[in-house]
Parts: sequence; C-alpha cells; structure tokens
Amino acid sequence: MVFIFRLILITCFLTIFSASMAQSDKRPRDYGIRFGVLPVGPLNAITDVPGVRVGQVTLQQGQNIRTGVTAIVPHEGNLFQQKCPAAIYIGNGFGKLTGYSQVEELGTLETPIVLTNTLSVPTAAEALIDYTLGQRGNEQVRSVNSVVGETNDGTLNDIRGRHVTRQHVLDALRQAKPGPVDEGNIGAGTGTVCFGFKGGIGTASRKLPASLGGYTVGALVQTNFGGALQISGVPIGVELGRYSFKEGLDGSCMMVVLTDAPLDARNLKRLAKRAFMGLAQTGGIASNGSGDYVIAVSTAYRIPHETTSAFDEVKLLRNDNVSPLFMAAIEATEEAIINSLFAAQTMTGDQGHKIDELPVEKVVDLLRKAGQAK
Amino acid sequence: MVFIFRLILITCFLTIFSASMAQSDKRPRDYGIRFGVLPVGPLNAITDVPGVRVGQVTLQQGQNIRTGVTAIVPHEGNLFQQKCPAAIYIGNGFGKLTGYSQVEELGTLETPIVLTNTLSVPTAAEALIDYTLGQRGNEQVRSVNSVVGETNDGTLNDIRGRHVTRQHVLDALRQAKPGPVDEGNIGAGTGTVCFGFKGGIGTASRKLPASLGGYTVGALVQTNFGGALQISGVPIGVELGRYSFKEGLDGSCMMVVLTDAPLDARNLKRLAKRAFMGLAQTGGIASNGSGDYVIAVSTAYRIPHETTSAFDEVKLLRNDNVSPLFMAAIEATEEAIINSLFAAQTMTGDQGHKIDELPVEKVVDLLRKAGQAK
Amino acid sequence: MVFIFRLILITCFLTIFSASMAQSDKRPRDYGIRFGVLPVGPLNAITDVPGVRVGQVTLQQGQNIRTGVTAIVPHEGNLFQQKCPAAIYIGNGFGKLTGYSQVEELGTLETPIVLTNTLSVPTAAEALIDYTLGQRGNEQVRSVNSVVGETNDGTLNDIRGRHVTRQHVLDALRQAKPGPVDEGNIGAGTGTVCFGFKGGIGTASRKLPASLGGYTVGALVQTNFGGALQISGVPIGVELGRYSFKEGLDGSCMMVVLTDAPLDARNLKRLAKRAFMGLAQTGGIASNGSGDYVIAVSTAYRIPHETTSAFDEVKLLRNDNVSPLFMAAIEATEEAIINSLFAAQTMTGDQGHKIDELPVEKVVDLLRKAGQAK
Amino acid sequence: MVFIFRLILITCFLTIFSASMAQSDKRPRDYGIRFGVLPVGPLNAITDVPGVRVGQVTLQQGQNIRTGVTAIVPHEGNLFQQKCPAAIYIGNGFGKLTGYSQVEELGTLETPIVLTNTLSVPTAAEALIDYTLGQRGNEQVRSVNSVVGETNDGTLNDIRGRHVTRQHVLDALRQAKPGPVDEGNIGAGTGTVCFGFKGGIGTASRKLPASLGGYTVGALVQTNFGGALQISGVPIGVELGRYSFKEGLDGSCMMVVLTDAPLDARNLKRLAKRAFMGLAQTGGIASNGSGDYVIAVSTAYRIPHETTSAFDEVKLLRNDNVSPLFMAAIEATEEAIINSLFAAQTMTGDQGHKIDELPVEKVVDLLRKAGQAK
Repeated sequence: MVFIFRLILITCFLTIFSASMAQSDKRPRDYGIRFGVLPVGPLNAITDVPGVRVGQVTLQQGQNIRTGVTAIVPHEGNLFQQKCPAAIYIGNGFGKLTGYSQVEELGTLETPIVLTNTLSVPTAAEALIDYTLGQRGNEQVRSVNSVVGETNDGTLNDIRGRHVTRQHVLDALRQAKPGPVDEGNIGAGTGTVCFGFKGGIGTASRKLPASLGGYTVGALVQTNFGGALQISGVPIGVELGRYSFKEGLDGSCMMVVLTDAPLDARNLKRLAKRAFMGLAQTGGIASNGSGDYVIAVSTAYRIPHETTSAFDEVKLLRNDNVSPLFMAAIEATEEAIINSLFAAQTMTGDQGHKIDELPVEKVVDLLRKAGQAK
Repeated sequence: MVFIFRLILITCFLTIFSASMAQSDKRPRDYGIRFGVLPVGPLNAITDVPGVRVGQVTLQQGQNIRTGVTAIVPHEGNLFQQKCPAAIYIGNGFGKLTGYSQVEELGTLETPIVLTNTLSVPTAAEALIDYTLGQRGNEQVRSVNSVVGETNDGTLNDIRGRHVTRQHVLDALRQAKPGPVDEGNIGAGTGTVCFGFKGGIGTASRKLPASLGGYTVGALVQTNFGGALQISGVPIGVELGRYSFKEGLDGSCMMVVLTDAPLDARNLKRLAKRAFMGLAQTGGIASNGSGDYVIAVSTAYRIPHETTSAFDEVKLLRNDNVSPLFMAAIEATEEAIINSLFAAQTMTGDQGHKIDELPVEKVVDLLRKAGQAK
Repeated sequence: MVFIFRLILITCFLTIFSASMAQSDKRPRDYGIRFGVLPVGPLNAITDVPGVRVGQVTLQQGQNIRTGVTAIVPHEGNLFQQKCPAAIYIGNGFGKLTGYSQVEELGTLETPIVLTNTLSVPTAAEALIDYTLGQRGNEQVRSVNSVVGETNDGTLNDIRGRHVTRQHVLDALRQAKPGPVDEGNIGAGTGTVCFGFKGGIGTASRKLPASLGGYTVGALVQTNFGGALQISGVPIGVELGRYSFKEGLDGSCMMVVLTDAPLDARNLKRLAKRAFMGLAQTGGIASNGSGDYVIAVSTAYRIPHETTSAFDEVKLLRNDNVSPLFMAAIEATEEAIINSLFAAQTMTGDQGHKIDELPVEKVVDLLRKAGQAK
Repeated sequence: MVFIFRLILITCFLTIFSASMAQSDKRPRDYGIRFGVLPVGPLNAITDVPGVRVGQVTLQQGQNIRTGVTAIVPHEGNLFQQKCPAAIYIGNGFGKLTGYSQVEELGTLETPIVLTNTLSVPTAAEALIDYTLGQRGNEQVRSVNSVVGETNDGTLNDIRGRHVTRQHVLDALRQAKPGPVDEGNIGAGTGTVCFGFKGGIGTASRKLPASLGGYTVGALVQTNFGGALQISGVPIGVELGRYSFKEGLDGSCMMVVLTDAPLDARNLKRLAKRAFMGLAQTGGIASNGSGDYVIAVSTAYRIPHETTSAFDEVKLLRNDNVSPLFMAAIEATEEAIINSLFAAQTMTGDQGHKIDELPVEKVVDLLRKAGQAK
C-alpha cells in the first residue's frame, strides 16, 4: 500500500511536461524548410487525423533515468470492441515490437499503440492488458493483443534498471489528448539518439487536396537511429562531419502512421512501407542493429469485436487511388523525424554520457545556403 | 521482503509434479500406435536432442487457477552469448507470441523459449529479461529478445487473474533438465483444451537413420486447438461424435521443434512449416481464432554474440538433404500432439467448467478395429 | 500459314478426351471412402462453385510426349476488366509459378489460372497475354499478370522437348466449361507421378450447410509429389511398401481453390494455407524439391479494372466466420488429391519409364479393413 | 532456316550501340555531384564486382519499336551448376517479375538475370530455358528457374506488338561482357520514362574501404517510375515544376544488386531492401502501379547443383558487419537511377509520344546553386 502510494508520487514527480524541453518553439517549417510537395495539416501532427490522441510520460530523474512512454490512441471509443484496420511493416526487425502476428493475421488493432524503451516492452504490454481488461464493456475479454514498440535508449538511460512501470504506461494512456503533440526529449523519446545527435519524439502530417480525396495522414516517430543525416535533401551529416560508415549506426526507429482514408490491412501495409521510405529520405540506412517498424492504422471505419452480422460491409479506397497517400506517408515521416531532431535538447545521462542537440542555427544556415530554408 | 518470501512459498505449493497428472504411464506407442515411418529417439521426447532441457511449473490451486509455464532451453551455455540459429513459422497468427521479428531478421535465438497462457506473455517476457540480464557474462547486455509463446487456457483457468509470476518462469528455467518430459496437465498445458478433450503438453522425437544423416528432431507442443480429431489417421472425432464445424475450434497450438541437424534460419523456417503439417495430420484446422506457431531451433552450431572474427564459418546441410528432416518434423509434431491427449486428465476449473480427458480405452479400441493399435 | 494449319491439326490429334483415361468411373466416394465431415457439392468438383469453368488439353503422342494444359476460368465475363479477389500461398517454393507478386500486392486475379509442366510456364504465360490482349474490351491493355502454375512431368514426358504450344493453352481456355471435370491422366496431369503411383488432375468440393453460410469451396489439384500416402487416414503407402524416406519425394503439387464466399485477399490467403494442410492429410511432406502452391480465388464479387468510383464497396465475411471454409478447403484438397490417384491410369512414357496406377482394388480392401470404405 | 537467318540480320540491324545514345559522355559525378559518402568503384558500374558481365540488345525501329533486353550474368561459369546465393525483395509488387518463389525458398540464383518490357517476360523466360538447357553440362536439366524482371515501356514502345524475341535475349546473354556498361536509352531501358523524363538503364558501384571489408557493391537499374525527383537531395522535380501528386507516378523500377561480400540469402534480402531505400532517396514513391523489385546476388561463393558432400561449407559475413554494405547498396542504387536520367536522350516513339530528356545543364545549374555540383 505504502509502496503504491510512493509510486504515484514518483510518477507525478518524474513527469516533466514538454513545454520546457524543446530547444525552441520553432519547428523546421518555421524556418521555411520544406519536405516534399503536399500540404500540411493544421497542427502538422498525427493528431490532425480526427479522433487521434497522444499521451506521453517522461521519466527524467537523477543522473541515470532518461526514458518514458508515448501512447497513441486511435479513437475515443473502446478500441477492443471497435477495432481499427491496421498493419505493421517490418523495415528492419532487430527490435522487440510485440503484437505483430495478430495484426498481420486479422488486419486489426485492438489496443492503443505504446512506445517505450527496449527492456520495458513487457511492462507496457502488461499495462495494455490492464487497460483493456479494466475498460467498461470488456468484462469478458480473455485475450488482448498489446501492440508495443520500442527503441533502445541505453546510452543516456539506465535501461537495465527498467524504470518504466505499468502505472507510467497507464498514465500516458489516461493523459492522451488531441491537439498539439510535444516533440523532442519527451515520452518514449526522452533518451534517444539519432544521427549522433539527441533524438526524440517527432510528428507531422499531410492533408491531401480535396481532388485527391482530402484525407489526412499523420506520422509520429521515436527517433534513435543512424546514417548520414539529410535535411530536405541537404547532406547535413557530411557538412557537419557527423556520420559514420559503421559505428553509431544502430538504434532503431519506431514509426506510427494514422489516416482517416478508408484502407484495409493490405493497403495499410503498403502505406506503412512508404513511411520506411520517409526514413530513407533522412539518410537513415536501417543498419543491422536497427529495429525499424511502422504501424499503420485507419480510423475511417471500425471492425466490431462482436456483432450480429456475419459480414463487415466496408467502403474501401481503390488501389488506383492510394498513391497520393503513399506520398503523404513518405513526406510526413521524413518531416516527423527532422522535427524530432529540431525539438530535442542536449542531454547528459547515464554514466555521464552526453549527447548534443542538433546545432539548429548552423543547420539552418547550411539549408539557407542550399536554398532550402528562408 | 515478506511479500517475496510468501511468493516463494506459494510457488512451491502450487508446483505439482507431473507424475501424478498423467492418465497412465502408457503413451500411444505403448498401445502399438504408430505415427509415420521414421524411427523414434530413445525418450521419444524433445530432450532426445542432445543438450536440450525442459522445465515446467504447474499452477493448480483452488477452483480457478489452472495454468503454468513450460521452458525449453536449447543448450547448457549462455544462450545470449552463444546464440542458436532459429526461425519462427506463423501457421495462424491469432496469438500473442513475442520475439518474432528479431528471430526472422537475424536468424538467431538468444533466450530460452517459454510457453505460458495468453495474458501472461508479458510476465514471461519480463522474466526472460531478468534471467538474461542476471546471467554471468551478460553484465553489459541492454537488449534482450524474449521468445514467449502461449495458448489461451481461459476455459479452465481464471486467465484474467494473471496468476503466473516472473518467479514461476524463473523457476521453470532453473528446473530445466534433460531426460523424460512430463506430459499432459502440466506446465503451460495445465489448463488447455484440445479437440474438445483435455489437452496439455506433449512431446515426441525422431532419429534419422545414419544413412539419412543420423540427426534427431524433437517436438514439444502445448495443445489447445480444435478440428476433427484423427489419431494415426483414424477419425476418432467423428467416431466419438466429438467435433465441430464451427464452435470450439478456436484455441491455439504452440509447437517447438529442435534438431541437431546443421540448418540455418532459412531451412529451419522450412522445418517449422512441416511441424504445422503435423498439426494438420491430427485433424486440426488452424481455425480463425487459433494461434498456431512453430519455433524451430538448431543446436548444431552457435552464433557468438561477439567475436573477433568478421565471419561465421558454418557447415550447413544442403537443401537436397533436408527432406528426411521435414518428414521427421511432421511425424514428431503429430505424435507429440496425440501424446498430450493421452497424458492429459479430466479437469474441473474456473467457474466449474469441466473438460473430460480423451477416453483412451475407447480410442484404443477404435484404433485396434482400424488396425492401428495392437 | 501452312505452319499454323498443321499446328491446329496436331493439336486436334493430340487432344485425347478424358473419358477414355480414367481407371474406372468410380471415384473414392463411390467406394464409401470419406474425407472429413462436411457435405460435398453436387459434382464434387471445383465447378460446383457457380460460374467456374475448366478446360483441359492432353498431349499424349508417340513414346515421349505425356503432358498438357489445364485451365481454370473463375467467371464468364472479361476477367481482366472484372477481376476477382485472390491470393497465393507458397507451401514450398521450389517451383516456377508465375504471377505471384502482383496477386500478393493488389489482391486480385486478372487472368484465368493455367497449369502445365515446368518448362512450359513461359509458353502458357505468353498464351494468357494473347488471350487477354485479344479479348473484346481489352484493346488498351498493356500489362497482363499471367498466373501459371506447374509441376514437373519429366519422368514420363520429354519435358526438355517443350511440346506445349500457345495454341494448346488457348484451346484449353476456349474449351473451358462448367459441369464434371475429367480427372487422372488429363491436361496438366497427363504425365505426373504422385506417391510413386501415377498422379494427375483431381477435383472435389464442399458445400457448407446453410447455417454456416451455405458457401461452396472447390479444389482442383495437379498431383506430382511424394511422401507416405494416406487415404482417409489409412497408411496405404506403408501397407503397400511404397514410400520413401528420401528418394522420389520431390515433384510438386499445384492446388487451386475457388469459393463463392465473400473473402478478400487476406482471408483468401488464409484459405489457401488450409489447402496446404489438406496436402498434409494425404501424407505429403512438401519435400525440398517440391513446388507446392495454392491459388485461392473468390467469385463472390468483382474488382473492376476501371470505374468512375474511387471506392470498392465490399461485403466481406467476418474473420469469425471463416473457420468452416478453412475446414472445407482442407477436406476438398485432400479429396481432390486422392481422386486424382483413383482416376489416373498406368502410363509408359519417355525413355520407357513406366509408372503404375494406384492398385485401387487392393487399396479399397485395405480401407475396408480399416473401416474406411464400404 | 531462312526465317532464322533474317532474324539475326534484323537483330543486328536493331542493335544500336550505346555510345551514340547517351546525352553526353558526362555522368553526374563528372559534374561534381555526389551521392552519399562511400568511395566508388573503378568503373562506377555493376561490373566492378569481379566476374560480373552485362549484355544489352536495343530494339529501336520505325516509329513504334522502342524496347530491348538487358542481361546480367553473375559469373563466368555454368550458373545452373554453380549457383549463386541470392534473394529478391518486392518493394511494390505491381509487376511481372518471374522466378521469385524459388529464389526465396532455396536462396539461390540459377540463371542470369534478364530485364525487358512487361509483356516480353515470358519470351525472356523461354530464352533463359533455351540458354540453360543448351549449356554444356546441363544435358540432364529438366527444371529451370528463369529470373526475369521488367518495366512497362508502353508509352514509347508498341508494347502490345511484343517485338522482343528469344533470339534478342540470347544475343544479350552472348554479348555480356565485363567493363563499362552503357546507360540511358539502351537495352531494357530503351523506351522507359522516369519522373516524367526519359529514363533508361543506369549503373553505379561502391567499394568499401579495406577497414570495412573492402567489398564491392554494384547496382544496375531500369528506371521507369515517378514521384518528385530529387538529385543529391535537391528537389529538381519541384524546381522544374515536373512532378505529380497522382498522374504519371506509375511505371516501375527494376534494381539488381551484386556484391562480392559473402552473404547468404537472408542478408542478401536485407541488402536488397536497402536498394529500395536508394529509390526512395531519388524521390520515388513506389506508387500503386509501380513494380519495384530488387534482385540481390553474391558472387563470393557458389552453391553447387550437385556434389558428393551433404554439406555446404560457407564463410559468411556476420550480421554485425553488414551495415556498410547496406549503405553502399542505398548509395549505388540512388546514383544508378540518376545516372540513367543523365544518360537518357529525348525520344519519340509509339503514336508519336515524345518524352524529353532531363535538361541536364539546367539541372546542374540548380545543383550548383544548392552547392551540390561543381
């Protein structure tokens, strides 16, 4: 009892809100940097997809705890009872994502998506079971397919300490809200490293013109990977002398793509694959040690867990019409990754490891010279 | 402290050894029943593969707890440091197996395999992290790919109570031993139901003649699925009037196949697929709600986690020579499934649900009439 | 011109109609042999699925030509313009099936399915292009995804001679008709060998009870594989001393499954996988050298090639309701394989190779003793 | 006889050598344009991988024939008897590549790789059978897995006319040679369109530093796809106002990657996936209608078709060491694609369709302004 009470206190104490963490209020777009050609949604965030909520819990304590949880909730209802069509694409499978096979087999998502660190996946999966079993209407549920992704924040975070608790995850789920999404050193991105700089959470969106369907595609990423950084095509990594042929490439990138376009699992898998192409656009190479996964979900319709009908009647976008969504997924993912780097701040963590933030002003200068920033 | 102490006590109390659980000491082979044409290993068990150990913890308490843990440990050493080539085949993915994508990507297994119930997968995954982080030599490990499979024992077991603890899993791992393997209502098979009868854990093996390489293939299964039961080809389900077109088909079957044949991940995936064919031989249909997975592992060589060489030098069985192993995997899996049914005993569990054991004497009579038993 | 004229003559000459080829008019069911528990369609043939037509051309000439073509046409209309949802499952991919990736990506079939011998796949693919380009309404078509499967009849047939021509394939397509389907030494099954006996074409069907949806599932197989033959579970291969641990296992099995159940590509892929389980039921082992593929197609709705709508509106059977179809696919495939063996007749072919037919009377005796035939 | 003779004449007549087809002798590198960070091989071509040969036949005749054949031969020996480890990655499967499943199942390539147009795949597959059956030492071969890729040149080429013959393919194979590879409007790239400009064949290579293993990775591409063109990260498509949200995106890209690094099929599949990331780097989006495939092959060792040993003894690069190869595959593919655009020339073809070449001088100006060209 006492233990539980303390846990809640600590949780509150550790949860540091993102406003204080971003490098500045300016996102790449505010510098005139562009990613692709499609129009951006109002918030340039995954929450531009109607009904989508994001909740984050940040654990930053003492010298060694630098981790957290980011939860993406696709709709307001009971997700287990009203599942979303979904797919998971495995870019490079050196990772511990859980929940893959059921999504692949049935084409549906039945829990929110939780991102955290590598060794905390089971804790988050437990919490999603807690969450689902505890939801009103789920009293008879005996099977839950938790979907949890991760990257390894073991450079800055005492990952072996496994500081994420079920309660942290439940808090992230409870706090999930629409509107702007905090980026950078927050939630599951608290302790991540990307292209040798401080990584974190990033998000972006695209809103197709009405002539192309008017759909929104939103991306949220947890960036922790390597390669030779490009921003809007400019070889920043090379210019800054910060890239590697071999070391420091590993890490991972979790990508979540939501859309209100009516796609089934097959076309969502194709959409997910395009998010991986967005990662390629940033200079990521999906190195051997990278766990690069994309979870794609449509909010356009629901697959009820139980119903009196033997059929699902669905109105699906035809194959012929998905290409603009593909382009949107590539662009939003690329921009979300760069957004994470712009927002993340220099951090010192476990064993005194220090990871510098992206030198934004210098980067913007380089982009200006290349004609890619104002 | 007190809490931990009590936990250990309960664990001991709950752990009921298998000797008392089998219907009788007679396995199908003892009745002259044959499965296929290949010779059987000395124990007719997965532990016929040299070095393989199995540990089981059974939770049977009060009216409602009927579950447990089965752990398969491929070799005596530090598995994280000395990985085994491995593959996972997804027969029907309505399940919660964790660890798939890394095995698929890298072709190696780095933790023992743990089987348990559906809602306890995260607990078992946590325990495998505990186990691995705690092993001597793993002090720097910050990433662990737990491989945990499950079936849903929610008919006989209060599965929502999530009674399996990390300690149960660690106990199963610690108790793992070579030699005969208990079958039936034990370990992860404690509360399972198969073809409408009491299911459980089963195991079998094949030893190829020297002319075909002399290799051993061992299978261990956790049986919890449906269809129209066939034993050695005889339509027992139909004869007993116990099968279904639709209801009671769901469940799942976890299959683990080990071999000392030198196969890489590609050929192990092919071997795994044949185990699924063994399930087909029993009349299983891999219904919509079934989670049917096969984890295949070779113990013939190790892939070191770290080494000074840039290369793995491996001597692999050629494609041309794998077919007898395929046949062995089919036969051993079929026999392991039937073994589980012969060993399992009638059980009453959660909410008073009662599941009858296979009426072995009647079944053997039917088999005798068909010329398939002595 | 003269050349073309002669070709047509030869084609006519070579085409030997099936009535003369079957061992007898009796199929296994006529002996009281049963495969599974579900009811059979009126013809017990793939053509029980409404609208499905089958056409076969048999090439049996001189001492060395023993091959042919079997075409399955899913519906009466222009298949390119009105595509069918479809999926292909690769049981064992040692084969030359063409057309896989587009079916996998788009979930549709746009040509009839053609079966032939291994080295004639390109010829058949050419013919399907001819057929499609030449169809009224396809004047603008510039891309055709021919779906052609094969097995290797190189024991009885001079396969290196590549005796199948485009015209043979076009003839098979043109002759396609509803109604009974010839089995045994006919069409693409003319020269095949199965379990060491003469194989061939086989077909069967299941019709679900109205309470399970009333759908029909039809299978057509080209049998050319090995293992230890089981018929209705009885180990005929062992009883006759005709099986192998290693030699003679290779070959292949092409399986085509059609249904009028409204399934999309995802559930058709699952259905296809069950046909492979039907192969397992016959004692097939999918040996290293086997090319075992299943093509599954639904005739329940069409995906138009072009349309003014941006959407496909589809009414799909829910995941929860597909299990009876799975059972039907297993049973129909098993029965189709055995039907092919009962129908096929002893054949002598290339280089004097002689393959005996299944000794049906002896087999039926064995089945009677096992209680599996009347 | 006469017919054959005329065919050879026509073939010779149609074969226009590449020297006359390139826009200029300058490749992007000659303008100081860089793609990534790794060093380039001596020829910056797929033929930098020792033993690799390329042969191309170009069909450009009258107003409507604009197509051809490109053949890649991995080694000098009998490829059927001495197979190469290989893998195929399907980026977007709207294409007709043949040979996929056997490569996937067995992990080997047994014919040269041929690229041509969509409707000529069967012809090329036939020719590869001719080639293989006719090779000395293959007298007993009765099964050939032709690997043929394609893109659709139907805008400039009368693709429905199917002007590629077997002889053209055999000619390309016979002419295959080491050394520089012609780029642009040649071979299978004769009539292709890329990003709205004239596409074609392109090639490039990377040679890893000795510290990273010293291996060579070579790419050859057939470019026929869309998106918003980027060159060395500079948004050329946007700058030139030549890109599309929806129309003109379709097409396809065939990518072939060879390496002398000792990789097995599993790691070759991973390498292949990175080539697809190189396509992403050029602004390609893998639209719905695109057939984007990568065939990856290692020349480091052979898998003999027959041998007295039951084993393949192989020395494989460890997973830990493959990341630099991944980077090389991305870079070489990106550069090969841009090389194809720089080499291709304006072409008028079927139905008077005219496709402009990339305005190289204007492009180089834009790259200079962005600091990406000298």
